[in-house]
Amino acid sequence: MIYLTRLEQFNAAHQLYNSDWSAAKNEEVFGKCANKNWHGHNYDLFVTIKGDPHPDTGFVFDVKKLSKIIREHIVSKIDHKNLNMDVDFMRGKLCSTENLAIGIWNELSPNLPNGVLLHSIKLYETPRVFVEYFGG
Amino acid sequence: MIYLTRLEQFNAAHQLYNSDWSAAKNEEVFGKCANKNWHGHNYDLFVTIKGDPHPDTGFVFDVKKLSKIIREHIVSKIDHKNLNMDVDFMRGKLCSTENLAIGIWNELSPNLPNGVLLHSIKLYETPRVFVEYFGG
Amino acid sequence: MIYLTRLEQFNAAHQLYNSDWSAAKNEEVFGKCANKNWHGHNYDLFVTIKGDPHPDTGFVFDVKKLSKIIREHIVSKIDHKNLNMDVDFMRGKLCSTENLAIGIWNELSPNLPNGVLLHSIKLYETPRVFVEYFGG
Amino acid sequence: MIYLTRLEQFNAAHQLYNSDWSAAKNEEVFGKCANKNWHGHNYDLFVTIKGDPHPDTGFVFDVKKLSKIIREHIVSKIDHKNLNMDVDFMRGKLCSTENLAIGIWNELSPNLPNGVLLHSIKLYETPRVFVEYFGG
Amino acid sequence: MIYLTRLEQFNAAHQLYNSDWSAAKNEEVFGKCANKNWHGHNYDLFVTIKGDPHPDTGFVFDVKKLSKIIREHIVSKIDHKNLNMDVDFMRGKLCSTENLAIGIWNELSPNLPNGVLLHSIKLYETPRVFVEYFGG
Amino acid sequence: MIYLTRLEQFNAAHQLYNSDWSAAKNEEVFGKCANKNWHGHNYDLFVTIKGDPHPDTGFVFDVKKLSKIIREHIVSKIDHKNLNMDVDFMRGKLCSTENLAIGIWNELSPNLPNGVLLHSIKLYETPRVFVEYFGG
Repeated sequence: MIYLTRLEQFNAAHQLYNSDWSAAKNEEVFGKCANKNWHGHNYDLFVTIKGDPHPDTGFVFDVKKLSKIIREHIVSKIDHKNLNMDVDFMRGKLCSTENLAIGIWNELSPNLPNGVLLHSIKLYETPRVFVEYFGG
Repeated sequence: MIYLTRLEQFNAAHQLYNSDWSAAKNEEVFGKCANKNWHGHNYDLFVTIKGDPHPDTGFVFDVKKLSKIIREHIVSKIDHKNLNMDVDFMRGKLCSTENLAIGIWNELSPNLPNGVLLHSIKLYETPRVFVEYFGG
Repeated sequence: MIYLTRLEQFNAAHQLYNSDWSAAKNEEVFGKCANKNWHGHNYDLFVTIKGDPHPDTGFVFDVKKLSKIIREHIVSKIDHKNLNMDVDFMRGKLCSTENLAIGIWNELSPNLPNGVLLHSIKLYETPRVFVEYFGG
Repeated sequence: MIYLTRLEQFNAAHQLYNSDWSAAKNEEVFGKCANKNWHGHNYDLFVTIKGDPHPDTGFVFDVKKLSKIIREHIVSKIDHKNLNMDVDFMRGKLCSTENLAIGIWNELSPNLPNGVLLHSIKLYETPRVFVEYFGG
Repeated sequence: MIYLTRLEQFNAAHQLYNSDWSAAKNEEVFGKCANKNWHGHNYDLFVTIKGDPHPDTGFVFDVKKLSKIIREHIVSKIDHKNLNMDVDFMRGKLCSTENLAIGIWNELSPNLPNGVLLHSIKLYETPRVFVEYFGG
Repeated sequence: MIYLTRLEQFNAAHQLYNSDWSAAKNEEVFGKCANKNWHGHNYDLFVTIKGDPHPDTGFVFDVKKLSKIIREHIVSKIDHKNLNMDVDFMRGKLCSTENLAIGIWNELSPNLPNGVLLHSIKLYETPRVFVEYFGG
């Protein structure tokens, strides 16, 4: 079994804010990330799939097709967007890197062709902070 | 003469939008960068000063002090902010990387100690797009 | 148990081409990667071994020796080479990143000293595409 | 379950030297790393914890608090230090990257709050050499 | 005046070979770079233009248009190509990084719109070797 | 004219300490960089030369020869060394990045072949701090 990873990138605004809490409590918990006027990031998204190389191509899966699927189902929905306001699959969720990675997994997974196994979503919010999610 | 550079980083939301234009014209010129709900970036800011090393320290200038000055006068005003709404020195200006670099130069320059010469502001909006400004 | 990784790098030409297919079919499946005149990459090769640190050295294995083994058995055979034409262990195989990683594993594994356990081969074709192989 | 990683950095001097051996034997085994006058590195330290995102915050754990804990319990003890001479938790140990990673795990692990699970310590000595430790 | 830089990337095969020389002389001068079966690289191409930001946009020039021009006039001709065989503007030239940078300047310069000033072509053959050309 | 740059790397220990001052004054000015037991860095050294490509090779200068000269005259003297104690060309000098860059220029410049013009020494102490020196 081989693990194949593709990097895609997107830039987005967001805010960490729990609407069940007061502004003061949000400020206390989330600090400057709670800024009501938003802030943003360049996100690096690493999508890893796994499988055996096909004897005709040597590919687990055509990485150009993988890129196209990620761009169509994920990047087009979140790039140059406000994650809290513009993204249907994040509606009603706290926009942490953790929840965004889970949201991307759930959105991408059913859109992969039969036989292409999603292994992990690795998401960098900054070069110093990233999360990894393996599903389930 | 030696050139000394310090990297600082900040994360911010912004929008490219000319308020003299219609929404349609903004969309046409700025594309997805005109998103009314904002988007954002991790910016890399390289500040370069120049001078001769001081015989007592071997320093053009103490890089920790340089970092402190940049953080106090620039990063504290733009990190985790909305560049269009929250930043006094960008008020009324188009929030392009070009204008932000010029704004940072103008803000930082008078706050450097006597004898510390600002050489350039190099500002990365993404790893693929950056500007450099040498003043004047 | 500790996992120790060494990065080596090589530059090579290759082509994705299935000789059982017509040129048109190759063009359809592999696109510009099928260019009959070749193209090439700077590959990053991360070799990971695992074990317990030896009490006398603190090393799982001397990383300089590991580097020497990788250079002797792998890099010398593929650096500044044509992967399809010049590399004995890729003869008759499709030169995908997947197959190259498997080929490197199979070539390196028997050349490691007794007790040095190969854990993974991670191979970057570009900064945006990489594969990982754990053997078997 | 989500894996959350934070990068911290430190700069330190060290030496690879087994005091049970002669200088000649140290030179033979460790080469220039045995230099009696020390050498040094910029280390990159990736700390990974794991858990489920909390429903109120979307966080496995507040990454700013994680950073503060790493700085207090690890970075403050090893940054701008001599690893062989200045660091209590490395006393009497060979200062290999392997042993330093294990030392960091043992030092950090009991200082994480209840419910925060340490998953791995990944430590880069140079961009070409790193180790990973998962405990136990 | 502001300097604006855009990074584009391409992957290509090439060979360093002077056809006026014997194979032995080529081997002596160019070493493994003279491999008759080619080798290749991931090239990083930084194109820098200069000018004053336009008052209506804040742009020296729309970086998306710059990217489109570079892709149309340069990348489409060299990406996934053999630089010695497939590239019209390198015909009859030695395929050194130096000559390739000059070739790119000469090809790109007349295809920039009036008023857009090309400042430099910076071309990385590997992360350790790059050239910069300012024209003339 | 073309500018050609080669990256070499070295790891070294050092200390910022002015022996004309008291320990307290050193601590006040240099902070943790004055640690009497040393600390260290992975340095990145970018050497840039300039000239016209030779018609027979396409090279300003053979970059492998440039690398060999840098390794022989610079890296061999400072890699895995204590900059304050082991390096003849830094004797009696404050080991700031500025002074090290000047020292490298002065050491390298006379060892370049006739007609090879040294343009700059760019020296990274960390990814966030670097200096550049153009001679004179």
